[in-house]
Parts: sequence; C-alpha cells; structure tokens
Amino acid sequence: MSANGSANPSTPSLTVHHLEDSRSIRIIWLLEELEVPYQIKKYQRVEDRMSPEALKKINPKAGSPVITDGDLTLPESGAIVEYIRSKYDTTGKIAPPESGKIDDLYYLHYVEGSLMPLLVDKLIFQMLPEKAPFFVRPILRAASGTVNGKLLDPRLKIHARLIEEHLAKSGDFFAGGDHPTAADFMIIFALEIWGHRHPELLGDKAKAYVKKIHSRPAFKRAVEKAGGHMYA
Amino acid sequence: MSANGSANPSTPSLTVHHLEDSRSIRIIWLLEELEVPYQIKKYQRVEDRMSPEALKKINPKAGSPVITDGDLTLPESGAIVEYIRSKYDTTGKIAPPESGKIDDLYYLHYVEGSLMPLLVDKLIFQMLPEKAPFFVRPILRAASGTVNGKLLDPRLKIHARLIEEHLAKSGDFFAGGDHPTAADFMIIFALEIWGHRHPELLGDKAKAYVKKIHSRPAFKRAVEKAGGHMYA
Repeated sequence: MSANGSANPSTPSLTVHHLEDSRSIRIIWLLEELEVPYQIKKYQRVEDRMSPEALKKINPKAGSPVITDGDLTLPESGAIVEYIRSKYDTTGKIAPPESGKIDDLYYLHYVEGSLMPLLVDKLIFQMLPEKAPFFVRPILRAASGTVNGKLLDPRLKIHARLIEEHLAKSGDFFAGGDHPTAADFMIIFALEIWGHRHPELLGDKAKAYVKKIHSRPAFKRAVEKAGGHMYA
Repeated sequence: MSANGSANPSTPSLTVHHLEDSRSIRIIWLLEELEVPYQIKKYQRVEDRMSPEALKKINPKAGSPVITDGDLTLPESGAIVEYIRSKYDTTGKIAPPESGKIDDLYYLHYVEGSLMPLLVDKLIFQMLPEKAPFFVRPILRAASGTVNGKLLDPRLKIHARLIEEHLAKSGDFFAGGDHPTAADFMIIFALEIWGHRHPELLGDKAKAYVKKIHSRPAFKRAVEKAGGHMYA
C-alpha cells in the first residue's frame, strides 16, 4: 500500500483510518509525498454525514483523521502531521525552508485553530434553515450572517484577503520554497471546502493554489487510494 | 515586566498582546513559568465581548493571543507556545518527559482543534435562545442539544470521560512528569471555561487539575500581571 511498495514487503504498521471526504485526505497526501509504506482503512459516513461506530472504536471522539502505528493511536491532524514529519521524514523532504519556518508553524496551527471552526460554523448555521420550519428561517439566516442567501459575515472575507496577501509573497506553497510542508498539508482541506461551499468568498490565488495542489502526482495517488474525494 | 526582572534591564522585545479574560492568559502563564523577560499590552473587550480595534491593528483576524517579538507578529496559541518553547526554553524547563512526548503533542493540537470549537459552539447555541423571540427558542434549544436547560449533547460527555481517564494515568500534568508542558498551557483555558459554563459536565479530576494549576505561583503572578482573570 505504500507509494513505491518497496520499503517494507510485509504489512506496514502505519495505518490511516480514513473517513470518506474528510480531513484524513491530508494525511494520505502527506504519506504519498513522503513515499513511506502505510495502509488505509476506509470508513463510510452514516446518517447526517456522521462517523460510523467502527471509527468510534478507534477514536471515541469520532474525529477523522486518526492513525495507528504499532501500539500508538493518534487523532488530530496537526499532531499527526508533526508526528509523521518527525518520525518518517528522515531526509527533510517536507521540511520548510529556513525563511518559511514561522509561516509553516503558524499555518500548522491556524487551520484547525481558527479557519476550520469558522468554516464549520458557517456550514452548521447554513444547514439549520433548511431543516427549520419556514417561519424561523429568516431569523436563522440573520444569525448565520446571511440575508436572502447573501453572506454578510466579514470574518471569512478578512481571512480570504490575508490568504491572498500571503500567497502573493510565499508563492507556490504556504511556507515558500519548492515543496509542500506541514502548512500545506493542513490548509488544503480547508481551502477545498471553502471553495466548494463559498467560492465567491475565496480569492483567485487561493483557488489557483488548490488547483496546483490537485495536479500533483502525489495528490492524485492519494485521491485514488482514498477511493475518491468529493472536493478534488 | 519579567518574572525576575533581571535578564534584560531595557524593555524586552517580546510582547504579549493580552485581551482580557481570553486565551492569552496561557501565554502569560507560560512566560511566568519560564521566567523570561516580556511585556504585556492590555486590551479591553468592547460590545458583545468582541476585540477592540486596537487589537485588530496587531492581528486583523482579531484573535487573542498574539505576540510580537522584534519584527515578528505571531497569532495562534499553539504556534506561540511552540515558538516560545523553541526560542526561550533553552534549559528544557517546560519540555515533556520522553514518555509524555506524544501526549504533549496530541493535547497541544487537540485543545484548539477539537475541544475549544465544541465549547464555543455550545456557548453560541446557548446564547441564541436568549436573544431569539420566544417561539423560536424550543427549536434553537433542540439544535444546541439542550431541552429545558438540560444538556443532551453527548460529545462533551465523551471528552470529559476521556480527560478523566487520561488524568488518572498522567497524574498532575497532561504529559505526566512534574512540571507543566505545552499540553497544559493549551488546555488550562479550555477547562476553565468548561468548568465555568458547564461544571456538571466536567469531571472531578479535571476540576482538581484546574485548582492545582491555579495554585501555582507562576499562575498567580500571571493573573496579577494580566490585571485579573475571570476564570481563576
């Protein structure tokens, strides 16, 4: 199941527990870039796009991704990226350039600490009106920062502007340089769902960035091994 | 403004931009444990507990904490903790024991990646009913996982149980050992607001943990220098 299949002919101990169309695509992409041996265990979403019981047996918090590696079970994207980088990237293949170390560190934490909660909240608030009785919908729309389907919330706009400004300086990757780093493995899923749900709020540079990442051979292999990815 | 005031007699370049009663108490506590020179710039919340314009000039995303250090401006708790640890903890004073490295890494990311969004969403959903017209309240209460003020959401209960199980093994600190590490600097604020808003959902070991942290001289100095802390 590894990218090159050569490092370990037996079953690799490193396993990505992959919930379809979830954050775990990050980890599969990361491992494809590193070309280290791993296996994927796939999980289908159940009603209301929730995690199935089988995944909760691995991670009681029901989140995705979670990896197992020998005796270790580790959830949380950021922790997994740092763990894999530290243990498996022995040649510095995904290390940030010296000039991009702080950007790499910042975006590693920013994505799940600030951006994803903003995007997920927006999603929750926008789903409520569809399920609520008609007479509540205007109130819920107001609460979600939308009026007549138009988004008013300025927070995503500020984040969009700052991402555009950053990419104008950093170039192809969030930490600069010529290869993806932790920052990229974290942010891709956030920009994918953002572009999918609110393309009108995502800047041109961010959209071009997502396209470039999707065109990488390692990302294409990741999607294939994941059995598809609704945002790619 | 440093804890011992001796390392640098001139104004230290490291500045914590502290929004009252916010996540930035983490960073002040961290710096008090490390006893490195720093200064605090304080910001008062404005209407609806929002960040003031002055803080947005430092961090356009309006989040707290944010630090400045020479030319560097760095938001995001997790990134700040990693940056300060790497640059200022030259003697490994807050380094996790070898056996606790994975726990330290996990909780460093878990707090902002999973726990805080859960607590903040709970807060938002619970605030909505108070502001919404009476006929919408039952619907919003259902959406927030509460019925007649009683919380139904099982997610926080699962997190509470796992934290109790972890503290039963790890002891005084989240990464084990005899001193706080990144995991503790991150989780204290989450457990404080949890205990403040939903004490019935927080376990006894977590409550005892918060009390123990609050009794540390460095935490007491942090609260004093912050000009108070509503959760301590």
